[in-house]
Amino acid sequence: MPETTAGDARTDEPPADLVVTGCTALVHDAAGGIDFAEDAAVVVRDGLIADVTTAAAAADLPAAERIDGNGQLAMPGLVNCHTHAAMTVFRGLAEDLPIEEWFNDRIWPVESNLTDRDVTLGTLLACAEMISAGVTTFADHYFAMDHVAEATVRSGLRAHLGWAYFSSQGPEGRDRSLDFALRWRGGAHGRITTALAPHAPYTVDDADLAATAELAHEHGLPVHLHAAENRAQTVNSLVRHGRTPVGVLERAGLLGTDVLLAHGTGITEEDLPVLARAEGRVAVATAPRGYLKFGWDTTPLRQLADIGVPVGLATDGAASNNSLDVWESMALTALTQKSATGDPRWLTARQALDHATTQSARAVGLGDSVGALAPGRRADLVLVDLTGPHVQPVHDPAAALVHSARSADVRTTIVDGRVLMRDRRLLTLDVPAITAELSARLPELIDQGHGRRIQDYDG
Amino acid sequence: MPETTAGDARTDEPPADLVVTGCTALVHDAAGGIDFAEDAAVVVRDGLIADVTTAAAAADLPAAERIDGNGQLAMPGLVNCHTHAAMTVFRGLAEDLPIEEWFNDRIWPVESNLTDRDVTLGTLLACAEMISAGVTTFADHYFAMDHVAEATVRSGLRAHLGWAYFSSQGPEGRDRSLDFALRWRGGAHGRITTALAPHAPYTVDDADLAATAELAHEHGLPVHLHAAENRAQTVNSLVRHGRTPVGVLERAGLLGTDVLLAHGTGITEEDLPVLARAEGRVAVATAPRGYLKFGWDTTPLRQLADIGVPVGLATDGAASNNSLDVWESMALTALTQKSATGDPRWLTARQALDHATTQSARAVGLGDSVGALAPGRRADLVLVDLTGPHVQPVHDPAAALVHSARSADVRTTIVDGRVLMRDRRLLTLDVPAITAELSARLPELIDQGHGRRIQDYDG
Repeated sequence: MPETTAGDARTDEPPADLVVTGCTALVHDAAGGIDFAEDAAVVVRDGLIADVTTAAAAADLPAAERIDGNGQLAMPGLVNCHTHAAMTVFRGLAEDLPIEEWFNDRIWPVESNLTDRDVTLGTLLACAEMISAGVTTFADHYFAMDHVAEATVRSGLRAHLGWAYFSSQGPEGRDRSLDFALRWRGGAHGRITTALAPHAPYTVDDADLAATAELAHEHGLPVHLHAAENRAQTVNSLVRHGRTPVGVLERAGLLGTDVLLAHGTGITEEDLPVLARAEGRVAVATAPRGYLKFGWDTTPLRQLADIGVPVGLATDGAASNNSLDVWESMALTALTQKSATGDPRWLTARQALDHATTQSARAVGLGDSVGALAPGRRADLVLVDLTGPHVQPVHDPAAALVHSARSADVRTTIVDGRVLMRDRRLLTLDVPAITAELSARLPELIDQGHGRRIQDYDG
Repeated sequence: MPETTAGDARTDEPPADLVVTGCTALVHDAAGGIDFAEDAAVVVRDGLIADVTTAAAAADLPAAERIDGNGQLAMPGLVNCHTHAAMTVFRGLAEDLPIEEWFNDRIWPVESNLTDRDVTLGTLLACAEMISAGVTTFADHYFAMDHVAEATVRSGLRAHLGWAYFSSQGPEGRDRSLDFALRWRGGAHGRITTALAPHAPYTVDDADLAATAELAHEHGLPVHLHAAENRAQTVNSLVRHGRTPVGVLERAGLLGTDVLLAHGTGITEEDLPVLARAEGRVAVATAPRGYLKFGWDTTPLRQLADIGVPVGLATDGAASNNSLDVWESMALTALTQKSATGDPRWLTARQALDHATTQSARAVGLGDSVGALAPGRRADLVLVDLTGPHVQPVHDPAAALVHSARSADVRTTIVDGRVLMRDRRLLTLDVPAITAELSARLPELIDQGHGRRIQDYDG
């Protein structure tokens, strides 16, 4: 009598915290491939996905809260694998410039104006944008990170946070990054993980990079840094160090740690065996919009796939990318990979979804806890409306998600089982209040009369 | 006493049909450059823009209808300069394929299944999508065009329509295209303009192209066709004809007509003087998303700008582009131009807006009647919400529009002074009814068991 047994088991259990029912669900098959279950239900208990079952099976399940997913698709929340959330305050300020002028003449001067409160406001605005766009985890690399962490707590998002440093700051920079990583590791009821965050091989010297690798081993911390951002940096590194940026990281011991490399558009053929033999968990974050804007190559995803290096999706900061729209990064990853390789068969919609789910989760060190709708994973999921005239008809849900749906089609965003946006209404953050306070700060924020800048770009 | 005089003048006038007030307005300066007016108002009478003035000046103006534009930006509606609206029915059906297989193995076989009703449904869905995305005019190139025209009438959109033909159809194809163009020219109270629509130089022979040029002159009709879609077509044309596709069009006399060339990514340096000396009004439509997807080059906008050929924005059909999102075409035009030229300074946000407004209007032969918020132009405009967390703060409205705002931020779409969407609610079309009827048709629509196709691709 299996029905009775099931019935008994259910009766013994307390009600589920949340049941999303009647939706299509993006699930992963036994081999990890992208698959879709129709008329599905997702059951959430204690912040975890307890079950992904059929709508019929979940119909009578007692639940504290139910969401009707009819016409919607449930999928793992997106992961923004590399951003600088607070830089939303500079969105659209420095356009149509090469990277040197963008850094030296515009961004690094105005970053010297930032107060702690500006970082808070910029991060809150970023969190609102990301929740609205279906992002449930972001990897942030910036300054004044206590304020970023506190904004994360308030937003309800999951985050992987690192306090950036330059060698020009002296040992204090590295110490502060370590101190932050140790204090906030496991914060926000486990939603916050941390990393050491040297800025890049062109702003952090070999000794500091080697010291970072040692600290990472000593404290069991991963490392998140910019590396081989573009081809010019690789050429310059070869001239200065006789090694590519990846070679510099290897020599410093950083490839023996769990390391997340932002961008990597300057990764060379010679770097591939170096990355392949790395003892640490090496991953790359790709933010393709900015590469188009700066006229760079894009991240070599095909070569990285060949050596098993996961590539997560990212947006970089809004000062270069103009948005924190990981959905757009997913579409642009598919499009720019086809364009860069000249091969329309490469990077299919399902491969793009693999980057958006499994590979992004692995990139930020959460490969076992997020990135899939599967029992035991954290309940980080989003519901996407597939009924819009720009999505219909749906011949193939993968193509519909990657090439037709938009971040604005995300109706509901859930992290750790908590609904942060429902039917496009943000439940944890007040956007008009944030933007009103930020507006008053803009004249001071963009002032360059002081002639300062926080660093010189010479990548 | 100027106030009194103004007051008297107002009193004598009947109430305005519509006043949009309190918005930022995208306007063109005396030299045609993009500018922005704050606290503006747009006054509409008899389907025309009567005035673009200050919110204060319009505060007491009697009006049948007022729209509060606070936090929004008014701009000319977007123009989709080349699409196949009805192909929404095949959205996402044929993905990750080179153009030959896309045409021969997937699209041209299923197009043989299309009934007139399918064309109606696909076009209505396309119109709903375009109205939702801020498009007010579309240039369509397809079959069963009476049904496209009737759907256009129902939607309230403006359209530039041409019935496509192949030489393989015999003279009937060309005759039908002419007959349609003459019957529907000036239809829908002037919202419909028409063109002769040979498919392309690789499917329409020299004699038919020359006959088309003669008919265009005889009847005062423009011509809309695919040309130099990609580099391979140009190479093949040189082998077969000793001329590029542009050279073939010149020899046929088509560059002496007002001609709209779709795509043009295969336009060569040698074509430029040919296009520059054309006696007709030559324009190009660019749909950059599909070029990325197929791994093609992109349209050479910089070279075309140098010789004064306007380039309008387009999406092509949803079967290749996956959406009819001209807003995305605008952003991708800026991004792919920077990438293709390696120059981050080329194709600024303001240049992208020039393509989206002035150049697109010129491309479809409406350069004097749409494309600008200016007195005497048709009242085709959209209101865009700038208050979202993904757009704020707005340091520069041009950058905000091109690089941060999305088609989903269009709140209100107006054509000829008639509101087609208000606060994202479509007022002329019923999407659930359209998609429900279309759903039932899908099995027959995608059947390829018959082994037919409407044409062979050998470009």
